[in-house]
This record gives sequence, structure tokens and C-alpha cells, in this order.
Amino acid sequence: MPDETRTHQEHPSEGPRIDALALARDLIRCESVTPAEGGALDLLQEVLEKLGFDCIRLPFEEAGTDPVDNLYARIGREGPNLCFAGHTDVVPVGNPAGWTVDPFAAEVIDGTLFGRGASDMKGAIACFVAAAAAYLAGDGGEGKAGRGSISLLITGDEEGPSINGTRKMLPALAERGERIDACITGEPTNPTRLGEMMKIGRRGSLNGFLTVHGVQGHTGYVHLADNAAHRIVRMLNALLAMELDRGSEHFQPSTLAISTVDVGNSATNIVPGEARAVFNIRFNDLHSGASLEERLRAVLAEAAGEDARYDFEVRVSGESFVTPPCLLSELIAEACLTETGETCAPSTTGGTSDSRFIKDYCPMVVDFGLVGQTMHKVDERVSVSDIAALTRIYGRVIAGYFARA
Amino acid sequence: MPDETRTHQEHPSEGPRIDALALARDLIRCESVTPAEGGALDLLQEVLEKLGFDCIRLPFEEAGTDPVDNLYARIGREGPNLCFAGHTDVVPVGNPAGWTVDPFAAEVIDGTLFGRGASDMKGAIACFVAAAAAYLAGDGGEGKAGRGSISLLITGDEEGPSINGTRKMLPALAERGERIDACITGEPTNPTRLGEMMKIGRRGSLNGFLTVHGVQGHTGYVHLADNAAHRIVRMLNALLAMELDRGSEHFQPSTLAISTVDVGNSATNIVPGEARAVFNIRFNDLHSGASLEERLRAVLAEAAGEDARYDFEVRVSGESFVTPPCLLSELIAEACLTETGETCAPSTTGGTSDSRFIKDYCPMVVDFGLVGQTMHKVDERVSVSDIAALTRIYGRVIAGYFARA
Repeated sequence: MPDETRTHQEHPSEGPRIDALALARDLIRCESVTPAEGGALDLLQEVLEKLGFDCIRLPFEEAGTDPVDNLYARIGREGPNLCFAGHTDVVPVGNPAGWTVDPFAAEVIDGTLFGRGASDMKGAIACFVAAAAAYLAGDGGEGKAGRGSISLLITGDEEGPSINGTRKMLPALAERGERIDACITGEPTNPTRLGEMMKIGRRGSLNGFLTVHGVQGHTGYVHLADNAAHRIVRMLNALLAMELDRGSEHFQPSTLAISTVDVGNSATNIVPGEARAVFNIRFNDLHSGASLEERLRAVLAEAAGEDARYDFEVRVSGESFVTPPCLLSELIAEACLTETGETCAPSTTGGTSDSRFIKDYCPMVVDFGLVGQTMHKVDERVSVSDIAALTRIYGRVIAGYFARA
Repeated sequence: MPDETRTHQEHPSEGPRIDALALARDLIRCESVTPAEGGALDLLQEVLEKLGFDCIRLPFEEAGTDPVDNLYARIGREGPNLCFAGHTDVVPVGNPAGWTVDPFAAEVIDGTLFGRGASDMKGAIACFVAAAAAYLAGDGGEGKAGRGSISLLITGDEEGPSINGTRKMLPALAERGERIDACITGEPTNPTRLGEMMKIGRRGSLNGFLTVHGVQGHTGYVHLADNAAHRIVRMLNALLAMELDRGSEHFQPSTLAISTVDVGNSATNIVPGEARAVFNIRFNDLHSGASLEERLRAVLAEAAGEDARYDFEVRVSGESFVTPPCLLSELIAEACLTETGETCAPSTTGGTSDSRFIKDYCPMVVDFGLVGQTMHKVDERVSVSDIAALTRIYGRVIAGYFARA
């Protein structure tokens, strides 16, 4: 594992105090479209080292994937270790003509910061760094000399295949003796207003790949054919008729979505001999990937009909998990109420995050960041006042954690 | 309507008697892959004129289609007019490497005639011409001086879009005062053995084109999307659950076949916003295209669910029809029994033929020809003994018709 220190760049926000907005703008200006590093990790390392953090780079590669650089920074030697997990890689800009600003210019217009990564999630990284700097400088806490450690686990592979990032950093860090006691993942969890939602768990995700083999024929002689489209329609209809569950204590009901059905037959008088479908299930803690697969196989076999020939493959990209109410979720809720007046709902909805890997190494992990309304879209943006408020929220969480953990 | 006489080619089978096998081979050697005339109509006209037939050519064209040449030949001025309907156009050879012979060489190997069109249906045309020639020469009947007329309605557009052929010839001939009293269409109606099956009607054919419009989204947030694949699966499943009918006196049950279902979404985490399907219904005389469309629209509307948005288009390419047992079907059955020992079943199964147009102009139309096992396939072929037997069967039908009509 290399421990590489790169040349620092000059940076206006360096020093013991960090301006979150300025740092967010500098990060956005690094064109770190996944899997490119784009200078974003270098910049962050420079800033954190000036604050006294020990930084290591953890680049990983694997056949068939792009090599990815990652950064782990820690200040303090003792436990407990409060970690912030994030990523500097961003999704592509999409249609550049759809943007009203340069996606990497980080313009501030009428109190709003525009740019790819503003919401997901360079903004939140900047807020946490600014909050940590303020805490270490003595604001609202015991300061740098206090107990415990603050760390940042920053990957460059969250928007990509998520193979050479957090998933490989965690065992590597564990091997080095690093222990993380609590972790805030800075994903944009708030649907519309800062402070309204944190994510305390995520549903699991399973993809099903179904290929039905029939016997091609002529629509005038259907008895001589075995219509693969008919079989797959009946099989998919049976999947749609399944009640997966009605939700659980922390989760909404599991959902199934057919992503595609394809036959590709252009002749109206041909009975198709093959049909394919793909579907995705987001499942809660009443299931595991394995238990779901067993149920799916039974439903498909029943619906397929006699003498059916089909292939069914399942890929589970993540099991469901939940962090029950804990100190971290309490601190986030209290800080949100104080700073925004919002009651922060502990949710398990929506897509997944790197917390699905972190939960195996850390007893409490909660996602909380900016407003996600424009993430992955054109004109991605956050309000400047939210950046200030999130910095204060993170500051309260850091101080509260070290006061009460 | 032009009445064009073309230059004759020399032909070995000319004269008052016709060798059916020789004429079939000469016709196969004309490369009349639809819509090309390939010399086949010219050859036929030459042979028929030498037999005393009056021939007219009926070329038709229409925007968006290839121009097609057609031939109508008649001998005799009085009724009843017994017509033979056929086509000289053939389907393409398909994969030439799949053939063991030259598709247009008309080779005879071990008692089998090979070539594109041997079965569908140059062979049957040759048999009818030979049978008519023999009848006119006085074999087994009243001869050329007898009552009634014999005619041939030969199109070059049966294997193509069927727009510039029989469909346009019939009204044009009716306008000229031509009346057809009985018609044998020479399609290869026998599944495996000559004499086992004639077609006394055909099912109708309807194509349904369904496009469902939903709202695209992310599989993690299915409540924000409207999955077009789910709606189309439910709609198609409802179509599959319909019992169209249980068959009628002359027809097997109507059948529905989904030809294709397509979404074309390659991302497993995307909820698709559009889905398309095409299906084909072969329907019997318990339905019309219009009555079926009404039923389909009701079933789809019911299954589509609330707020569904979809387009449904119906194209009826032919209504069902049946010629109830009549003199022509009796004569064919008697001749088959005598010449082949087979009981010729009056069937309405399988694909359609130009009889669907002829039935509107002629009170009795029956399809009967060679064995269809290899039609449209590589190594299309018929047995030489079947060509001789079909010539004798057609001869008995011609003689019987003029004796009893």
C-alpha cells in the first residue's frame, strides 16, 4: 500500500480555518469525472495535511476496471474514530448544451453554487473539512488536543463500478489496524430541504436475468411452435403479482421493477423462439439476496408452464442493512432541528451508497449531506446558505460525538 | 387495360398435348423471384395461345410498390367458367449454400423435381395446363367444342405484398364482363401426401400494434416512475388469457400469437418509459376484423390500469371466409380418392392465399395443389409421380365440372 505525498497546489482556503464555499468551488473546478482523479484528491490532501491530518493514498486496480486513486486522512491516534466517508468522483455532465453554466466553473449566482458535484458530493466534503477545522481550532469542543480521532475516507470510485474504491479501502485499512467507530457518509440525503432526511440503512438490490427458449414458427401454425414471448409474459406477470412484503420497522415495502423485455422480432407472422427480460428488486431486511432468489425461482418455475426451457441468473449487488437509532443519528437529528428547524427523518429509501460496504467495518453509519434534487442532472446546484448550515450541522455532530461517545 | 401479345419463345412442350413435367421445369428455369416476371408469364402465354386460349396481360402499379405483370387466359365464350388461379412469382432462394442443387436448374433426381417454385406453385400450374390441354384435346370430356369456358388467372404478385396482383385483376376483369363460376387455386395444400387435404376457406388475419407510454425513472424510486414494461406485461397477459372461441363448424379455434415485445433498455437500474408489442390473430368465421378489434380494445383498456397512456393500432389483412361443401370440393375429393386413395379433408387451417380475394367474385373457390412440405425452404421439391397424379386429378375435376355444373 503506497503512502504517497504529492506536491501541494496553492490554495486560497489553506490555514487553520477553512471556508467551506471556497473549498467546494475549488473541488468542483477539478474535473474529476469518474474514474479521473482530476486533482481533487491532491487538493484535499493538501488542505488536510495543513490541518494536521496524516494522509495516505490507496490506489487500487483490477483487471477489467480502471485504476482508481483514494485517500484516507486521520488526525489523532486514540479512539473513538469519527469518520466522514465521501467521494470526489462525479458523474459525467450529460448534455453540455443543457447546462446554463460551465459545469466545472463553480459559479455562484444569486446565492446558489452551480457545478457538477456541488450536491453529490464535493459540497458536503468541503462542509465536513470546514467543520473539522473549526472543531480542531477549538470552536465548540475540546479542540485538537481532545480525545479521539477524526478521519476522512475519500474514494474516487463511487459513481463508477465501485470496485476499486471504498470496498477495497476498508479491508486494507483494517489490515493496517485502523478502526472506525462511527461514520457519516456525505451523500445528498435531503429530497428538497436541508435537514429533512438522513439515511440509516439501505435496501438491498438484486438483478434477475431471464432468457426463455421456445421454438420459432409461423403465426398461421402456432401449434407447431412454442412461443417464447407468451412464456415470458406469463412469467413476468407472475413476478408482478408477487407481494414481496408490506414493509418492516425501518423499511418501506420491497419493490420489483422490470427493466427490459426484448424479443427483437420484426416479422409479424413469426412466432418468436427466444425472449429475454431483466428486472431489479430493491429489498428490505425481511429478505436476503439468497432467500429472494429461492422465492423467485419457485414463482418462475410455476409460471413457466410445462416443458419450459429458460435460463435465470441472479446477481445481488448489495444486501439490505440498517443502523438502528444510535448516538450518531440522534446527534444529526438534534443538529438539524437546531440549525434548520427540520425534523430529520431516519430513512432507508432510495438508492444505495458506500455505506453498504462501511457497515461491515463500523457499528454505526449514517448518510447525511446536502439536498439531492439536482444530483446527476444538468445545472447541479446547492444553495450557499445550505453549505453554511451543513457546516454548522457537521460541527455540532463532531462536538457532540466527542462529548458523548 | 393493355392487351399485349409478346413474342413467343421456342418451347419444347408446345402442341396440343402438354407434358406437365417439362412445362414445370421450363417455368422453374424462369427466375421469377417476386416481383420479377422472369419470362414465366411470357412462356405460359405462349403455351396457352398455342392451345387456343385468348390471353390478356394486366400489369398494375401503385405508389410505394413494384409494378407487377399478370396474365388472364380464357378459352370458350360461354359459361360456366372454371378458373385456375395461380402465381408464377416465387420467394427468394434464401441461403444459396443451403441448396444441394441450383434452385433454377429444375433438376430431376431419382424421381424428384427440385427447384424454387416446384411446389409453390409452378408445378401445379403446369399440371393444370396439361390437364386442360388433354381435356380440350378430347380426353375424358366433351373437348374444345363442349360447353363452358376454362380460364387461368395468373399473377406475379402473390409472394410479395399482394397489391398489384389478384386483388386488382378481379375488379378489372369484372369490369370487362368476365365472370368466374368456380375456381381452383393451385396452392400446395397437402401437408405430406398428395390428395390428403384441400382448403375450403381460410382464417382471417389481424395484426395488433401496441405502444405503451409510461414515465421513465430509477429502479430505486419506482413510485416516481410509471413502468411501461409492467403495463405492457399485464396487457399482453390479459390478451393471452382471452378465449377467442372454441372453433366453429369448418374452423379450428382462433389463435393469438405475440410476435414481439420490445423495450430496448440496457440499464438495469432504469424504469423504462416506453414498451412496444406486436401480435397476430388468425380468426375464424365467428369474428370479423371489426368485432375482434372492439373486443381487443376493451380487454386492453381493462388491463392497462388507471391513467394508462398507450397507442393501439389494428391492421386486418384478410377476413375469414369459407366455401361450404360444393360441387368443386366434391369433385376434388372424388378425384383424390380415385387417383391417390386418399380421403381429401376439407380444411381451413394454415396461412392465407389469393382465394381471400377470389371469394368476393366467385361463389365457389377451393385451394388444391401439390405437397407443401418444402415450400419456401431450401431444396424445394415435388415428386415426379405427384405431378402426373395431380394432372390426372385436375383432369377429372375439369371433366366432372363440365359434366355436372
